[in-house]
Amino acid sequence: MAPQYAPSLRSRMPPLLLFLQTGFIVIFFCKVDMEQYLEIKQQVFRNHYSEFQDVNGMVILGFGFLGTFLVRSSFSAIGFNLLVAAMAVQWAVILNGLESLYYRGKIWINMRSLVVAEMCTASSLIAIGAVFGRTNPVHLLLIALMEVSGFVLNGWLLQTFLQVRFLNSIMLLHIFGAFFGLMLSWVLSRKGSEQYHEKEKIDRKTGLFSIMGTLFLWMFWPSFNSVLVELDHPDRGRKLMAVYSTYLSLAVSAVTAAGFSVLTSPQGKLNLFHIQRCTLAGGVAIGVAMSAAHPPWVAMVTGFAAALISTLGSRFIKPMLRFAFECHDTCGVLGVHGLPGILGWMVHLLLQITNSDDLTTAGRFALFHICALLITLCLSMVLGLITGILLKWNFWKPLQDKKCFDDQAFWEFPHLAVVK
Amino acid sequence: MAPQYAPSLRSRMPPLLLFLQTGFIVIFFCKVDMEQYLEIKQQVFRNHYSEFQDVNGMVILGFGFLGTFLVRSSFSAIGFNLLVAAMAVQWAVILNGLESLYYRGKIWINMRSLVVAEMCTASSLIAIGAVFGRTNPVHLLLIALMEVSGFVLNGWLLQTFLQVRFLNSIMLLHIFGAFFGLMLSWVLSRKGSEQYHEKEKIDRKTGLFSIMGTLFLWMFWPSFNSVLVELDHPDRGRKLMAVYSTYLSLAVSAVTAAGFSVLTSPQGKLNLFHIQRCTLAGGVAIGVAMSAAHPPWVAMVTGFAAALISTLGSRFIKPMLRFAFECHDTCGVLGVHGLPGILGWMVHLLLQITNSDDLTTAGRFALFHICALLITLCLSMVLGLITGILLKWNFWKPLQDKKCFDDQAFWEFPHLAVVK
Amino acid sequence: MAPQYAPSLRSRMPPLLLFLQTGFIVIFFCKVDMEQYLEIKQQVFRNHYSEFQDVNGMVILGFGFLGTFLVRSSFSAIGFNLLVAAMAVQWAVILNGLESLYYRGKIWINMRSLVVAEMCTASSLIAIGAVFGRTNPVHLLLIALMEVSGFVLNGWLLQTFLQVRFLNSIMLLHIFGAFFGLMLSWVLSRKGSEQYHEKEKIDRKTGLFSIMGTLFLWMFWPSFNSVLVELDHPDRGRKLMAVYSTYLSLAVSAVTAAGFSVLTSPQGKLNLFHIQRCTLAGGVAIGVAMSAAHPPWVAMVTGFAAALISTLGSRFIKPMLRFAFECHDTCGVLGVHGLPGILGWMVHLLLQITNSDDLTTAGRFALFHICALLITLCLSMVLGLITGILLKWNFWKPLQDKKCFDDQAFWEFPHLAVVK
Repeated sequence: MAPQYAPSLRSRMPPLLLFLQTGFIVIFFCKVDMEQYLEIKQQVFRNHYSEFQDVNGMVILGFGFLGTFLVRSSFSAIGFNLLVAAMAVQWAVILNGLESLYYRGKIWINMRSLVVAEMCTASSLIAIGAVFGRTNPVHLLLIALMEVSGFVLNGWLLQTFLQVRFLNSIMLLHIFGAFFGLMLSWVLSRKGSEQYHEKEKIDRKTGLFSIMGTLFLWMFWPSFNSVLVELDHPDRGRKLMAVYSTYLSLAVSAVTAAGFSVLTSPQGKLNLFHIQRCTLAGGVAIGVAMSAAHPPWVAMVTGFAAALISTLGSRFIKPMLRFAFECHDTCGVLGVHGLPGILGWMVHLLLQITNSDDLTTAGRFALFHICALLITLCLSMVLGLITGILLKWNFWKPLQDKKCFDDQAFWEFPHLAVVK
Repeated sequence: MAPQYAPSLRSRMPPLLLFLQTGFIVIFFCKVDMEQYLEIKQQVFRNHYSEFQDVNGMVILGFGFLGTFLVRSSFSAIGFNLLVAAMAVQWAVILNGLESLYYRGKIWINMRSLVVAEMCTASSLIAIGAVFGRTNPVHLLLIALMEVSGFVLNGWLLQTFLQVRFLNSIMLLHIFGAFFGLMLSWVLSRKGSEQYHEKEKIDRKTGLFSIMGTLFLWMFWPSFNSVLVELDHPDRGRKLMAVYSTYLSLAVSAVTAAGFSVLTSPQGKLNLFHIQRCTLAGGVAIGVAMSAAHPPWVAMVTGFAAALISTLGSRFIKPMLRFAFECHDTCGVLGVHGLPGILGWMVHLLLQITNSDDLTTAGRFALFHICALLITLCLSMVLGLITGILLKWNFWKPLQDKKCFDDQAFWEFPHLAVVK
Repeated sequence: MAPQYAPSLRSRMPPLLLFLQTGFIVIFFCKVDMEQYLEIKQQVFRNHYSEFQDVNGMVILGFGFLGTFLVRSSFSAIGFNLLVAAMAVQWAVILNGLESLYYRGKIWINMRSLVVAEMCTASSLIAIGAVFGRTNPVHLLLIALMEVSGFVLNGWLLQTFLQVRFLNSIMLLHIFGAFFGLMLSWVLSRKGSEQYHEKEKIDRKTGLFSIMGTLFLWMFWPSFNSVLVELDHPDRGRKLMAVYSTYLSLAVSAVTAAGFSVLTSPQGKLNLFHIQRCTLAGGVAIGVAMSAAHPPWVAMVTGFAAALISTLGSRFIKPMLRFAFECHDTCGVLGVHGLPGILGWMVHLLLQITNSDDLTTAGRFALFHICALLITLCLSMVLGLITGILLKWNFWKPLQDKKCFDDQAFWEFPHLAVVK
């Protein structure tokens, strides 16, 4: 029983994939149809399509390359990201359409439903970031399906019982994904994972690939935050404001992350992970905070604060998590999505209270707002816990410790050049 | 006469390049002009321009990086792709404008003509994929010019004699390019090429670059398939349907390719080439099939079938081709473009017959449809044969066997770091 | 006092970054607001936003990856590019808004102001390309701020005193950036830099990353040249013409650069730097020349000439610069931006004279046009000189010679895989 080879997934992965895919096709066959825009205008098509492409770019290119930094598991990062995204999008389209199925008898596909599905997928890719490298692709698929289900449920709860607006509930994807992933990572943690894993290494080239992921996310983020803001809203400027705010917040975030990265380094050097991830904190925070129109400096201050807590979180809280709670966070989702998400939530609260005319409205809003966060946190962590316990089942052939962070367990390398 | 160095292209490549380029400039000087849209509307500009950018991205970034997987010839892959594309686009603009030249006295450049030229270029880049690494850049240029000429001729034949619609004839680019390339590869095959070439190796980083090409293609494919569908068509939804269908087909394709890749692997592992190429099969198939409006599940089933035959083709037919026919297919164009293209053609036939009201129309359509495929196959293979024979001429200084798949034959490396 | 370690930037970089960033936030707080488009139309939003994204992509992805070719300083190239761009954009928004601040009491942010700010940033990134690798990030920030200030001042001078149109003055960014950078590089040159630096090496993978930057620039360049041309201009076709011209010029440029690269190489091989940079010369030249509507062949001839002088410049003038003037030009900005920029300026002059009806107008235009170039050249070189002298101050902790072109001086590498 020498565990020299990683267990073959041949008896698990193809049946699961093909079963799920066939199931999805059957559901689509029975219940899903494309919306016929009879009166569609040309520019409407173009508007929605371009923004959809940007969000798709974030999910496929951005999140995909962001995880490639580990030198021995970069194929897994990019390959499984595509696989999981392709699966989760279909599942999210179905789940998001349940309400329409109930009322109208059909699930309709349109640009908006695809964008919303991509955003749910992004949420699950964040969760996967926390456990990446220590799980096999079957695990990742199950995590993604569970996470998307939980996130859609969370949105439904918030919208139904707390009258949270759709736009605000979907932006909680960062918080939901991050805490789902962290809880999962805690459950799946194993003996010996307190130290850095010997294979958990980067090299210059994989570092460059992952910075490329960062830059794609950085570039497309204004679209991500503004895509669901309607242009024909009475308050017309809001979509543009979302774009400008995100852009400014990201710019400030990049500068601040670099500043604090050098400041907290004993030798006064930049840390690749801070540049790669904390520069994105501003986009997360402003996305969660964005709902009220506000002047540009608010976005800039939010970006500043987000990069600050993100950098400090990566420098000090991430190692603590690992030692104190034995919770390994491969891609640092706590620092990039969790903490800035909560910061954004607080900024939103603050802005809303400041903008309120009377104390009653402000209090009422604060109560609902706090409940929304608590529900999201509880649901994400409980579902992360359940998913983790489910995945501990040996049926899914977990990876041995030695095979973590290694593509060799899942990929054929027949023609790999040995030297170089 | 020691063949230690690759033959210098100094006396062949610059004269050819500069002669052709000067010729193109002269033709443009005499006969080409930019269309003056006097009544252009803003959104029209934007619509067409964005889609043009996406198609341009597929040709330059997508096809360029797709070929970079070979560790020792990645510069050639990306560099010659740009060079060939830049040349082929100009040639395609001229050829596609011949009809307008005849009737209106001028060739007009507009967004549509550039997009069509890019698509012809894509066809030639597919053909090049089959012989890449065993040919020099002069060969590649000649192949591209011949292929584009053949493809434009093919389209003209189909539209003139078989009343095939323009949109349908241009989508045969996958089939035309693939079989042109395969025939060419068969003619150019050499003794000793039955075994895997020692330099035909990938490494992790070049693998990542080529997956990046895949992801660019994956992302932009909905634009590629929908760009020529007119928005102001009476059946307005068709452009959106093309987008949704392509997207769904690609998603299903990615999942299915991963499933069958693991299933057909003895150790239950994923194969990089399958993830890199077979995930795209869905886009090819649905592009060829796309003409009638159809529900989403048709696109999904098409994607499923395309990924299935593409994966099986890559796993079983590609090695067979190499041994039985001595036909080397560097980038696997048979599995990615050839077979899925024919599948898409069959889906189109099936859909059209199902949608027909009476048997006569269906039969008539089937006849024309089969003729269109046969003409395309014959023309592509005959032209591939002729081009191959032309290229066997020693005047073009073919590569020695030892120098195949090696950048060193064509690129200066003065400042290359020796160790890493 | 062994200079074994690079001097720590902890006491310089974070205070500078955080001070400037806080200052920018304070200025934004007091004086900057987002423009409220009350009557915005949907397509207007979309048009401007897409083009803004393309320009942003050039600045972040294009310029960022273009500099990654040096094997030991690719992190610096991409990381500092993001940092500098994030900073310079904010500064450019403020400087460009000064006029509006004076007349309207506020600086307004809108799509146009962001695009203009991105273009000023691009100018500073060109300047940085000349000295990259031999400067620390504090230097780079100061250079960027000085360059942007100088470029805005130059534009104001040209528009105010010479009635140069805004569109024409902003396109001088290539010339201004290149000569600013060259002058700076000359001032900062040090003993021993006449020979190639031992660490100034590329490898295959970093070469690929930098070609990726080239391809992004190549793809987005038509947007860059056309973004500021108004669609509702009386001469409606101009925006489209800018797109077509740039595209054709780039295509011809790619072919020509390859031709002359092989022709000037003793062994008849391609040079990576020529493919990487000289293919872009056409975009630079046509951008500077673009103002009058003209037939496509003019753009093609411009692209041809630009690639010719750029290739010859890189092959012969760059080494000469290094030996004769001790001026090191890391990214070859003279060949890519300087010379083609001046060529474009001459093409503009020629076209304008040819289009003039009478001799007086032509002469008047020529006078103003020559003055504009001279002012730009003088201002850029004088400011480059001043900036260089400022940066020679030891307070900024210049790099030792040994640490040039090395990421190790500025980046932490705790988990770097040692082998590979």
